[in-house]
Amino acid sequence: MRIDEDRKFMARALELAVRGMGHARPNPMVGAVIVKDGRIIGEGWHEKFGGPHAEVNAFAHCTEDPSGATLYVTLEPCSHYGKTPPCADLIIEKDIDRVVTAMVDPNPLVSGKGIRRLREAGIFVTVGVMEKEARKLNEVFLKYVTEHKPFVLYKAAMSLDGKTACHTGDSKWISSEDSREEVHVLRGCYKGIMVGAGTVMADNPLLTARTEGLDDPVRIIVDGNLSVPLKARVFQEGGDVIVLTTTSSDEKKREELTKLGVDIIMTDSDQKGKVDLASAMTGLALKGIDGILLEGGASLAASAFEAGIVDKVRIYEAPKIIGGVGAPGLIGGIGASSMAEAVKLRDMSTETCGGDLVIEAYVDKGKKEAADERIDRLEEEVKEGPEAPKTEESSGNET
Amino acid sequence: MRIDEDRKFMARALELAVRGMGHARPNPMVGAVIVKDGRIIGEGWHEKFGGPHAEVNAFAHCTEDPSGATLYVTLEPCSHYGKTPPCADLIIEKDIDRVVTAMVDPNPLVSGKGIRRLREAGIFVTVGVMEKEARKLNEVFLKYVTEHKPFVLYKAAMSLDGKTACHTGDSKWISSEDSREEVHVLRGCYKGIMVGAGTVMADNPLLTARTEGLDDPVRIIVDGNLSVPLKARVFQEGGDVIVLTTTSSDEKKREELTKLGVDIIMTDSDQKGKVDLASAMTGLALKGIDGILLEGGASLAASAFEAGIVDKVRIYEAPKIIGGVGAPGLIGGIGASSMAEAVKLRDMSTETCGGDLVIEAYVDKGKKEAADERIDRLEEEVKEGPEAPKTEESSGNET
Repeated sequence: MRIDEDRKFMARALELAVRGMGHARPNPMVGAVIVKDGRIIGEGWHEKFGGPHAEVNAFAHCTEDPSGATLYVTLEPCSHYGKTPPCADLIIEKDIDRVVTAMVDPNPLVSGKGIRRLREAGIFVTVGVMEKEARKLNEVFLKYVTEHKPFVLYKAAMSLDGKTACHTGDSKWISSEDSREEVHVLRGCYKGIMVGAGTVMADNPLLTARTEGLDDPVRIIVDGNLSVPLKARVFQEGGDVIVLTTTSSDEKKREELTKLGVDIIMTDSDQKGKVDLASAMTGLALKGIDGILLEGGASLAASAFEAGIVDKVRIYEAPKIIGGVGAPGLIGGIGASSMAEAVKLRDMSTETCGGDLVIEAYVDKGKKEAADERIDRLEEEVKEGPEAPKTEESSGNET
Repeated sequence: MRIDEDRKFMARALELAVRGMGHARPNPMVGAVIVKDGRIIGEGWHEKFGGPHAEVNAFAHCTEDPSGATLYVTLEPCSHYGKTPPCADLIIEKDIDRVVTAMVDPNPLVSGKGIRRLREAGIFVTVGVMEKEARKLNEVFLKYVTEHKPFVLYKAAMSLDGKTACHTGDSKWISSEDSREEVHVLRGCYKGIMVGAGTVMADNPLLTARTEGLDDPVRIIVDGNLSVPLKARVFQEGGDVIVLTTTSSDEKKREELTKLGVDIIMTDSDQKGKVDLASAMTGLALKGIDGILLEGGASLAASAFEAGIVDKVRIYEAPKIIGGVGAPGLIGGIGASSMAEAVKLRDMSTETCGGDLVIEAYVDKGKKEAADERIDRLEEEVKEGPEAPKTEESSGNET
């Protein structure tokens, strides 16, 4: 079956793409597989921002002549001169017969042009194999490139009854060792990690990834009135730090922070005198922050949901019941006033980690995500192109 | 494969057993399948308390002579005269060749004797096929018959952040329509439903199953100082009601309740002046309550976990975030003072219902459940019996 074979090789290309996690950003993660007579003859992925694209690496690793082969690539090949020459040209030059891609590139510089170029050169192009998986893999890139805002993942650990600590404050540990380790890896997968001033003052954390091969995230501290002392470890022990504050914060303290090498983004206060998170996101995107891991505390989490900046949640639920009216819960603030006002989630999925249940879901913004909408539109265009043989038809041609 | 075939027919027998849900209690749910030459020739289940056992029904529905056939039955056949004659004798009389059972009967009146009787009559007996599933199916019966206490399932619905209502009190609805419907069925599957006085006063609920073919549960109201007014619907609109209260409650009010047909169980006050739930459980078991669906509220749930009476939890988690420091959480009371004190859960599993995530887990009591221990011991005895051909050996004999 052609479709089964396409899925098999695309799955492999996606697997390769993941290896660029934490290194390719703010570029997308891309994987490529070159297949001849049903055998893989070359594999590659986008290893590093600024480095060769996945296709280039796959050709470089070919064990035999790729002429007449099929190229599987998780994202539409580029057709423009960026940091590297256009991959579409290379594919044509290598005499590839067919290109299978998971999705069009939502980047306005590329979108659909690569596919058109390939088709004009007489190459069969199939679009949309394992597209859902490919979109998910690059969800951070997709939001960043279409909305120019960072993708925000809210991560938290709680007991099955929604508590993050006992009424006494004891919280060591809610989640399993495996879950805590996984969170460190997660920190390396996002460009930024965001916490509130309260968390910094309570725990004085370093907020590092502590994972070999992954960079530490940029520490983003939300501190409307600059209450975190200058001696906090996060300011003193190196690494990139951005403080989000308001224009009404103390100017002298801002200067002192700047002297420590801390970057500052100022926003107007929101109605409650807090940082306007929505506009701060634009500022962060301009500084190259494409994705943020939001770790809390409860009050910042509440503000983030209220500001509508959260895209996805990942909750580690430990098999424990803490109980207690006075034990703190996940999200603080005032919260929804009616069930209709509650933040809606979609595409909930679960896995387990060291005995904990891990729940992932996306914030349902009541409209199609901008990235998805853009890709849908582009694909419609691409699929309607005169040079586009349909998957079903081309299936008959080549098998 | 003999083992695959055994599992296949036992799975069918378990499926049949479930049909007795809500009707067989306080007897166990049992299913039986008679197989000849690889075909099912008779099926039956224990349909109703006091009615014929599953084996009797399976023989009654046989489409051909069961002589030489294999009987699959989810629980060890009985060997004593109870409400019906012993099934072991019937099996011998019907000239069955082999009996496959999922588990020994933990009931002291039967345990192991049925298997011994069959083996003495020269019938091959295999014990333990799909035993885990069979134990789970009859978890209520197993606890009731070995500990003489009701099995308690704590059921609740919450948002993903552990809230049961908004800070305003709005809670309609947290969970999906499908989930709420499922809860009504659940009510019909347990002999009793337990709620606190606060819930009755706040919602004035009827607490019925509202499910065709299933009886309404006995309403168990925990009301230490008899604060629920006599005009509450639960007292006025028929059905069985048991009030759990303390010896220090108002005697006159107890008399009035008794006049309304309400049954009363009195316990000493616990340290906090509340009903001593642990001893109340013994009283409920004596009244034939084998299983209880505990529905809340938050304060009763806290007391129940503290008293150690909860066996299992089933949490409906809606894909929503409510947030708010003032929004009520699942479990009230004081709660654990340290992480080590938190109630530990085991065997967590998930399913979905109408878009909600449903999490089930068992309370880990830090020791083996009495029922499991008893069955393990019985099985050890049975398996060591001289007439017991091992599964592996008999597998060679008959295929």
